Amino acid sequence: HPTSHMREKTLTMETLNPHVKAVEYAVRGPIVTKAGEIERDLQEGGKQPFTEVIKANIGDAHAMGQQPITFLRQVVALCTFPELLDSPTFPEDAKKRARRILQGCGGTSLGSYTASQGVDFIRQDVASYIEQRDHGVPADWENVYLTTGASDGIVSILRMLVSGQGSSRTGVMIPIPQYPLYSAAITEMEAVQVNYYLDEDNCWALDINELHRAYQAAKQHCQPRVLCIINPGNPTGQVQSRKCIEEVLHFAYEENLFVMSDEVYQDNVYSPDCEFHSFKKVLYEMGPEYFNSVELASFHSTSKGYTGECGFRGGYMEVLNLDPDVRAQLIKLRSVQLCPPVSGQAAMDVIVNSPHPEEPSYARFHEEKNAVLGALAEKAKMTEQILNGVPGIRCNPVQGAMYAFPQILLPPKAVEEAKALGMHPDMLYCLRLLEETGICLVPGSGFGQREGTFHFRMTILPPKEKLKVLLDKVRDFHIKFLKEYATLEEQLR
Amino acid sequence: HPTSHMREKTLTMETLNPHVKAVEYAVRGPIVTKAGEIERDLQEGGKQPFTEVIKANIGDAHAMGQQPITFLRQVVALCTFPELLDSPTFPEDAKKRARRILQGCGGTSLGSYTASQGVDFIRQDVASYIEQRDHGVPADWENVYLTTGASDGIVSILRMLVSGQGSSRTGVMIPIPQYPLYSAAITEMEAVQVNYYLDEDNCWALDINELHRAYQAAKQHCQPRVLCIINPGNPTGQVQSRKCIEEVLHFAYEENLFVMSDEVYQDNVYSPDCEFHSFKKVLYEMGPEYFNSVELASFHSTSKGYTGECGFRGGYMEVLNLDPDVRAQLIKLRSVQLCPPVSGQAAMDVIVNSPHPEEPSYARFHEEKNAVLGALAEKAKMTEQILNGVPGIRCNPVQGAMYAFPQILLPPKAVEEAKALGMHPDMLYCLRLLEETGICLVPGSGFGQREGTFHFRMTILPPKEKLKVLLDKVRDFHIKFLKEYATLEEQLR
Repeated sequence: HPTSHMREKTLTMETLNPHVKAVEYAVRGPIVTKAGEIERDLQEGGKQPFTEVIKANIGDAHAMGQQPITFLRQVVALCTFPELLDSPTFPEDAKKRARRILQGCGGTSLGSYTASQGVDFIRQDVASYIEQRDHGVPADWENVYLTTGASDGIVSILRMLVSGQGSSRTGVMIPIPQYPLYSAAITEMEAVQVNYYLDEDNCWALDINELHRAYQAAKQHCQPRVLCIINPGNPTGQVQSRKCIEEVLHFAYEENLFVMSDEVYQDNVYSPDCEFHSFKKVLYEMGPEYFNSVELASFHSTSKGYTGECGFRGGYMEVLNLDPDVRAQLIKLRSVQLCPPVSGQAAMDVIVNSPHPEEPSYARFHEEKNAVLGALAEKAKMTEQILNGVPGIRCNPVQGAMYAFPQILLPPKAVEEAKALGMHPDMLYCLRLLEETGICLVPGSGFGQREGTFHFRMTILPPKEKLKVLLDKVRDFHIKFLKEYATLEEQLR
Repeated sequence: HPTSHMREKTLTMETLNPHVKAVEYAVRGPIVTKAGEIERDLQEGGKQPFTEVIKANIGDAHAMGQQPITFLRQVVALCTFPELLDSPTFPEDAKKRARRILQGCGGTSLGSYTASQGVDFIRQDVASYIEQRDHGVPADWENVYLTTGASDGIVSILRMLVSGQGSSRTGVMIPIPQYPLYSAAITEMEAVQVNYYLDEDNCWALDINELHRAYQAAKQHCQPRVLCIINPGNPTGQVQSRKCIEEVLHFAYEENLFVMSDEVYQDNVYSPDCEFHSFKKVLYEMGPEYFNSVELASFHSTSKGYTGECGFRGGYMEVLNLDPDVRAQLIKLRSVQLCPPVSGQAAMDVIVNSPHPEEPSYARFHEEKNAVLGALAEKAKMTEQILNGVPGIRCNPVQGAMYAFPQILLPPKAVEEAKALGMHPDMLYCLRLLEETGICLVPGSGFGQREGTFHFRMTILPPKEKLKVLLDKVRDFHIKFLKEYATLEEQLR
């Protein structure tokens, strides 16, 4: 029988792991929670000054109406229910791939665990894809690890790299603005976050001098060992030049940094004067002394590109120049999770081994792929143009990825009001936008930005007509917001 | 241009995160690597004293030939390729479930991210399932979180609970023998592993006195805050009695422990005199003072039971009595991973919402389910009987789960030889077994065992005929092994 003492909770805000407490993840932060509440209120017949919440906070293509690539879904459905392999309604090339994937699975079932690194021949297909992408630079499939989305791979590599205490603690260099997975993982692992600022005045380019500055400053209080790059940029949308990449790799070589290159938007390049260069290809072109020594992990995902298959949680990483003993440790670490989802592995295989010209699904596949990428390019342009037409908003070209990250000039009165509320000024702005228009964006403070500047991130994923409405609403709101917070003097003008 | 210095690797065994280095995970450890090497050698025409490697090291049902449940695969295939919803070859109840799942997905696509906790109505289905399983004990769907297999949920909860330094560091009580995910996570998080030993002489039952002993001893050097239970047991196969569970919960109540109850084998109970009782149901029956206070997380998975869908990485956890602020922290922590794989969520939904008696797939579903569970019950019995017929092997009844964990008496000469090789004696045994017979088991040392005792874990998953061959080979090997290592005196006898 229970004793009469009042039982205390074991897990409270006081006893909670303090590093978990310190984690922030804006992409699904308080503003998104608020959007969900408003959405439920609308569904239950509540009154709002709008009829629909538009979630432009996350790169979630299908949720915004993008259609799946037929061939990919055919292959995964065939793997899931192999009786369909006898059905005449599925094309032969889809069946061929499904049979091959099932041959790589224990008991020819998608329901078996795979090796911790993923199915061998899917890793081989990934390696062939990388070779082709990089115009023949050799890729060894043993360096390829399939992952649960890209995030999972990024976290695994960071976990290996974080060690030391005090001034020898691992410093992780990340761009500002950054994708908040990085800051969240660094916080939770108690690593030291080392910020290098992208150059907003120069289309968010990476400035090698700023990298040097950040490194030298960090060396005073930690051991910078990791350099994270996001190219094309999230949230910034910039595409790095080949020259820039070479400078960065030279720097990493000189300073003995482990390079983590987040290249999940490698298929999302829109500006005609930009081209995606993989860090690996550039490293190769710098010569064997670089190619055989710089430790480089590159990440890719089924969630972005033209497929947008976020829900499958597919991805891979290629890790170069890992010490052989360390490689065994990485495999061990990943084996504790058993294996990445096998349907995600199958989806990844379709992306790296898409229909060949002589196959029946070739035409449809490329039609669908080009339609998605063409529409994204148009929307990237439209977003930049409309936002730059708003007084007090300045938006760099969306060269790639899926986001605009415009700077917003906020009136001093609004900044003061936010501070009085203990809130980031761009959070106040985004909250007001959500409440008045139903549009959910993420405040720039969630990604990091130079002190005194304010931004928001929005995806360019909604269908063109809807995106136009959204941008018009943002413009109207912004103008109204500026008026509301104008000084008396400005108002009387 | 590169400078002439020889670039050192950044990530070496010296700089690697030492907690990663310390992790061990025997289920996919060195013996499994060795098995893979031998398998490849066989495929390449190498000569071995056997023609096939049998991997009985892991609970991987489909890899051992178990067929998927048709209804589950139909639903997931329909969700993956919704054009099939028009196909007359799929039953209406499968279509109904697929349509409903897609309604819960953004853009009605399996390719969208879901909420971090999973699709709302799948969580509701899980809650209804739990209520039914527990004969009406109320379940709140807001306490349900879908996960990437059970492991992912277990790691999340542990990550919240680990804090403090020195003698206030979190102690995590785990059974010995245990499933090595627990020891791996504890090591990596630098928590303190607190062992309580299951009673091998009493069918691996949990002895409440041993729990008290372990707790009191641990209090001297850490802060025991978490009690992990595996029921039915992995690797031990025992099913806890209702009385035992009540004692454990009373203990957790008194000592303010957070209870983690790994119940992934809840559908795998074979002994006619055993019954699965969920920790939650027993807690409820102990009265509101218990039910409204003990913090309890329970875990389930698509990978075990009668479905064996490991590759989908589906699972859920139900977390009771979490402090509301802490709950928000848990959601935040999980949101960094974005969401569990959506096809795994769909698979989980089928398990908790299987065909009803009036639906067309009911008969086939139950036929398939009963065939799997019936065969497992037979194989559990057969495994116990054959192993107990071998001199020097003693096997407790396999009351539930999917494994036998027999004790093996090893000759002193074998123990000495292993020690000279710097190897656990049961590792030597399992390596020899693998090399001579092609059978891959996991040494007991990978799960933990009382000092001086030796075991191995084997799954009972191979088809009956194959399992019989496997067990006969183990018997023959064991007898030969005993002879080989017998003392001269014994040999002359």
